[in-house]
Amino acid sequence: MSLQHALLGVLEARPMSGYDLVQFFDSSTAWIWAAPQSQIYPTLRRMERAGLITGDDEPRGPKLTRTVYSVTDQGREELERWLSTPHDPSPPRDPFLVQALNFDTIDAEKAHAVLEQFITEQEKAAAEAEAHRQRLLNKDTMLLKERLTRRDPAEHDRIARLKAHVFAGVAAVARTRAEWAREGQRLLTED
Amino acid sequence: MSLQHALLGVLEARPMSGYDLVQFFDSSTAWIWAAPQSQIYPTLRRMERAGLITGDDEPRGPKLTRTVYSVTDQGREELERWLSTPHDPSPPRDPFLVQALNFDTIDAEKAHAVLEQFITEQEKAAAEAEAHRQRLLNKDTMLLKERLTRRDPAEHDRIARLKAHVFAGVAAVARTRAEWAREGQRLLTED
Repeated sequence: MSLQHALLGVLEARPMSGYDLVQFFDSSTAWIWAAPQSQIYPTLRRMERAGLITGDDEPRGPKLTRTVYSVTDQGREELERWLSTPHDPSPPRDPFLVQALNFDTIDAEKAHAVLEQFITEQEKAAAEAEAHRQRLLNKDTMLLKERLTRRDPAEHDRIARLKAHVFAGVAAVARTRAEWAREGQRLLTED
Repeated sequence: MSLQHALLGVLEARPMSGYDLVQFFDSSTAWIWAAPQSQIYPTLRRMERAGLITGDDEPRGPKLTRTVYSVTDQGREELERWLSTPHDPSPPRDPFLVQALNFDTIDAEKAHAVLEQFITEQEKAAAEAEAHRQRLLNKDTMLLKERLTRRDPAEHDRIARLKAHVFAGVAAVARTRAEWAREGQRLLTED
């Protein structure tokens, strides 16, 4: 279950509350793994029962507490095992391709408009991933800064480059898709 | 629900039984939409109840019958409506990217091996999509042949080009991913 492993990876950088994790997933990992709040809390409880993380209650104001989760040794081993294992590719389920596969059955102008919105989305995704890549290369994200405080300074550049490269890939795929959609628009108007 | 629309698109080309559809999804649409048998049969029953398709019992041997589904007018309208509507992009949930985002925490050789398998898979996917693209350009798939018998011959080349283009996109994305992974392997060995 990849959400578990995504959460372990984030908590390895810094112990966090469920609330912090929800914010974090919203702001930063959303291009990689869309995790709604409704999934994060129950997953954290399952992971705690399985011994992968442990929760500590911290005071938050005079009367409230919040549970801050950190990764256990068992969680660290599980993360390393999962990261080191080649997994089967996820089964393809792209509604957009189902749509495109039937574009010959609708008006060319309608298909053109659907492709236009797709291009806009992909270009936006590419720009956002590219911006995030730059922030990582500059070691300028909250989480990377935290993570680097626990790692050997001699490794910092390599860590930033490896993380940034993931977003280079997200951007490259989005650009490839936009280019493909533009070629599709040209094909729609050909006889 | 995209499986519904994928099924409508296929049944528009030729009325088929549930069994035929399972074979078809296994052999041809698997790169676009992975649909296990366990999903196809209940979805067909739901679509029949909703009036999108209608089932006719045909004799199959002396004692058996099989239900052959075809698209109703209502189903055709629903398909056209769905195809003409720009949809929100699917939420990204790629376990492989979660893995890659944490490659700095495992041995470089292990991460290299995970990337190697990823490259093999992507290159295989690209080659298969490219081969399917060629078959479509040559109007040489069972389903496209059936589909074209109901369409104006003046349109045949355009239909084949539009369908083939979908697989050009699948191949291009797979090649982009393989190239990205190769660059990732280079980054792993840098200081």
